[in-house]
Amino acid sequence: MSILITNVLHQGKPVNVYLEDNFISDIGPSVEAEQTIDGTNLALLPGLVNTHTHAAMTFFRSYADDMELHEWLRDKIWPIEAKLTPDDIYWGTRLACLEMIRSGTTCFNDMYFHLDMQAKATQESGMRAVLSEGFIDLMKPETGEELLTKTMKLVEEVRNMNCDRIKPALGPHALYTVSRQSLESIKQISDEEDLLIHFHLSETKDEVENCVKEYGKSPVRFLEEIGFLGPRLLAAHSVWLDEKEISILAGAGVKISHNPVSNMKLAVGKAIHYSEMRKAGLNVSLGTDGCASNNNLDMFESMKFATLLQKFSLNDPTVMPANEAFQLATVNGAQALGFNAGVIEVGKLADLILVNTRMPFFQPSHDLISNLVYSANGSCVDTVICDGKVLMEAGIVKDQDEIIEGARKATERLIQDGEG
Amino acid sequence: MSILITNVLHQGKPVNVYLEDNFISDIGPSVEAEQTIDGTNLALLPGLVNTHTHAAMTFFRSYADDMELHEWLRDKIWPIEAKLTPDDIYWGTRLACLEMIRSGTTCFNDMYFHLDMQAKATQESGMRAVLSEGFIDLMKPETGEELLTKTMKLVEEVRNMNCDRIKPALGPHALYTVSRQSLESIKQISDEEDLLIHFHLSETKDEVENCVKEYGKSPVRFLEEIGFLGPRLLAAHSVWLDEKEISILAGAGVKISHNPVSNMKLAVGKAIHYSEMRKAGLNVSLGTDGCASNNNLDMFESMKFATLLQKFSLNDPTVMPANEAFQLATVNGAQALGFNAGVIEVGKLADLILVNTRMPFFQPSHDLISNLVYSANGSCVDTVICDGKVLMEAGIVKDQDEIIEGARKATERLIQDGEG
Repeated sequence: MSILITNVLHQGKPVNVYLEDNFISDIGPSVEAEQTIDGTNLALLPGLVNTHTHAAMTFFRSYADDMELHEWLRDKIWPIEAKLTPDDIYWGTRLACLEMIRSGTTCFNDMYFHLDMQAKATQESGMRAVLSEGFIDLMKPETGEELLTKTMKLVEEVRNMNCDRIKPALGPHALYTVSRQSLESIKQISDEEDLLIHFHLSETKDEVENCVKEYGKSPVRFLEEIGFLGPRLLAAHSVWLDEKEISILAGAGVKISHNPVSNMKLAVGKAIHYSEMRKAGLNVSLGTDGCASNNNLDMFESMKFATLLQKFSLNDPTVMPANEAFQLATVNGAQALGFNAGVIEVGKLADLILVNTRMPFFQPSHDLISNLVYSANGSCVDTVICDGKVLMEAGIVKDQDEIIEGARKATERLIQDGEG
Repeated sequence: MSILITNVLHQGKPVNVYLEDNFISDIGPSVEAEQTIDGTNLALLPGLVNTHTHAAMTFFRSYADDMELHEWLRDKIWPIEAKLTPDDIYWGTRLACLEMIRSGTTCFNDMYFHLDMQAKATQESGMRAVLSEGFIDLMKPETGEELLTKTMKLVEEVRNMNCDRIKPALGPHALYTVSRQSLESIKQISDEEDLLIHFHLSETKDEVENCVKEYGKSPVRFLEEIGFLGPRLLAAHSVWLDEKEISILAGAGVKISHNPVSNMKLAVGKAIHYSEMRKAGLNVSLGTDGCASNNNLDMFESMKFATLLQKFSLNDPTVMPANEAFQLATVNGAQALGFNAGVIEVGKLADLILVNTRMPFFQPSHDLISNLVYSANGSCVDTVICDGKVLMEAGIVKDQDEIIEGARKATERLIQDGEG
């Protein structure tokens, strides 16, 4: 399969871009292709990479807001989550993928339940993803052993799909929900099987204080002690870290997923130490978190929140300029997840988006990247290509109505069951 | 002129809404009208009200970002602003109105230059607005006298347009750019002529400290002393206030325009004291500020920033729940500007928007207001009616291409002149 995109804006100039199979094969040619997309008035950009999601939580979007974190989980989220069926996960993930595609994301890193259904929905959506089964043993190692067996069976299932776009991973939830023994087993399997670990780290002050109470040291120091850190670890949030912990994480090659909207909405108390992380050489990428705590999957919005949160918190309007925010959402994310994508270059995976430069909020066009970060939202995305296949063209996603209808029916049943 | 909107979602139920001339005339009827809009899958909401803009600064969107405030003004914004022609103001304001209409704003409060051109562009756009000529005498009362004569001539011109949608106002820029004598004269004219005063107040810590140095007291205390405060004063920003100042402003009936995106982007150092203002009974509404410091005019985005900034700053996820953020952007804004709008009720001005409830980010629909505030952006707006006239229908604004082209040509010339 080949696709030619003609007359599309790339680094300020109109070019032709040739995609062959799932790679960017040439920039500048005017050869024939099986499919041609007219890129006039469109700008070519790498697809955005969302490195922290709980995709099927789209079902809980605006189900419960403006609550204290603990009440919110205990009274609202956990009771309804317990009712989720595999079918719900399928439709919730399809809905998430639809929303991500529409807003220019081509790749995401997910942690939720029923990994097989996450994988089925993601495969059908055409997106690229790292997917993990959320692992919570509630500090009981014997539960952990059972769960790990179950998890590895699911990982095997995903591998057997033979879908290059989808990588299984391990999803130990957090230090306060997973026992030390399970964390150690997970780390060992991650190394043996070359699986990424998707983990929540130091999101709140409480989490850090409880870890000190439980283990006598801060989360990063404890994880270092048990040998859990390493380049396959992607740590979401990572807000409450001191200087030494940042240096430990950098030394171990851990990847950080920053989730500014969720951090602000759930009031975690401070902004991530972005400048220190950058200085230490850490890979920082960007995530939306799940729809219960954001409440959308729009990475354009998250870029703006990321940079404005830094400026505001540090009293410094020069921190995280637009091009850095854009790197967080593209090349850093692709690197963190181990995909050869995130930039427009020959030889890179054909994961790309075309944005409509005629939108009023792009006028005038002094600086495209600045407009993307500070002025745009996901609605600027016109066309989305992932792995060399068109997922949205001129604003049309083929199965949109079917997905919205399927998700609507599933949520209706879920809420009735939840209240019944 | 009459318009019937059929089968539209209002307070959770499908209804018919009848508009006669420029008022909402009935909710629930199924009579004939001159124009019928099918409201199926659309939700009916009041048009959003943006209470602090510098509309024509759309021209400087992404012209200069990520800079220190003073350098940014001195090296970038002021030199290029000095080159603005009346024609630029016309196109810049048209572009701003286009962007506001597309993102569901029907009414705004503007301060910029060439008031006659602001008014012409606003009248042609069909929007409702309060418009003022920015007044800066650089602390020279004699300059102030000349300016005031010029300003009142412009006010008279706007009045002579006889356009009910447009109210002229007075726009003294700020305490550090306008002399005490001019402020006193402006206050007197405001009272005599019933004109709103649009003013920047206590945006930064520096501003407060310089005021104390210059006048021996904080801005609000000084303004109280010279008799400047009153119910016709709309104060933008108002971030750096103490408890006593909030109570003085409340006692005087001053209105506050909160600009969360601009405050974060320019790093003003803290969040507005929203809860205290609310407790004191102050009218707090919402503004985007100009496009040089936001960089868009999307009030949906500003609602989300407003509530998340409060939650984050106070470490409390329950502050400013979604419905309050929505009030800031609708009824509070209309009240602040003295328009009988901002809610959907019989007898109110027909300033309303229809949003597309089929957008993926509205699925599922547990809570529409929460979805509007936390999940949506301006792209959810399908149809916009202001003063009983349709400004956008099914995503189409009639003169969009002409406006984008006009703005493009004007900015091109401006930048060439600026660099020449």
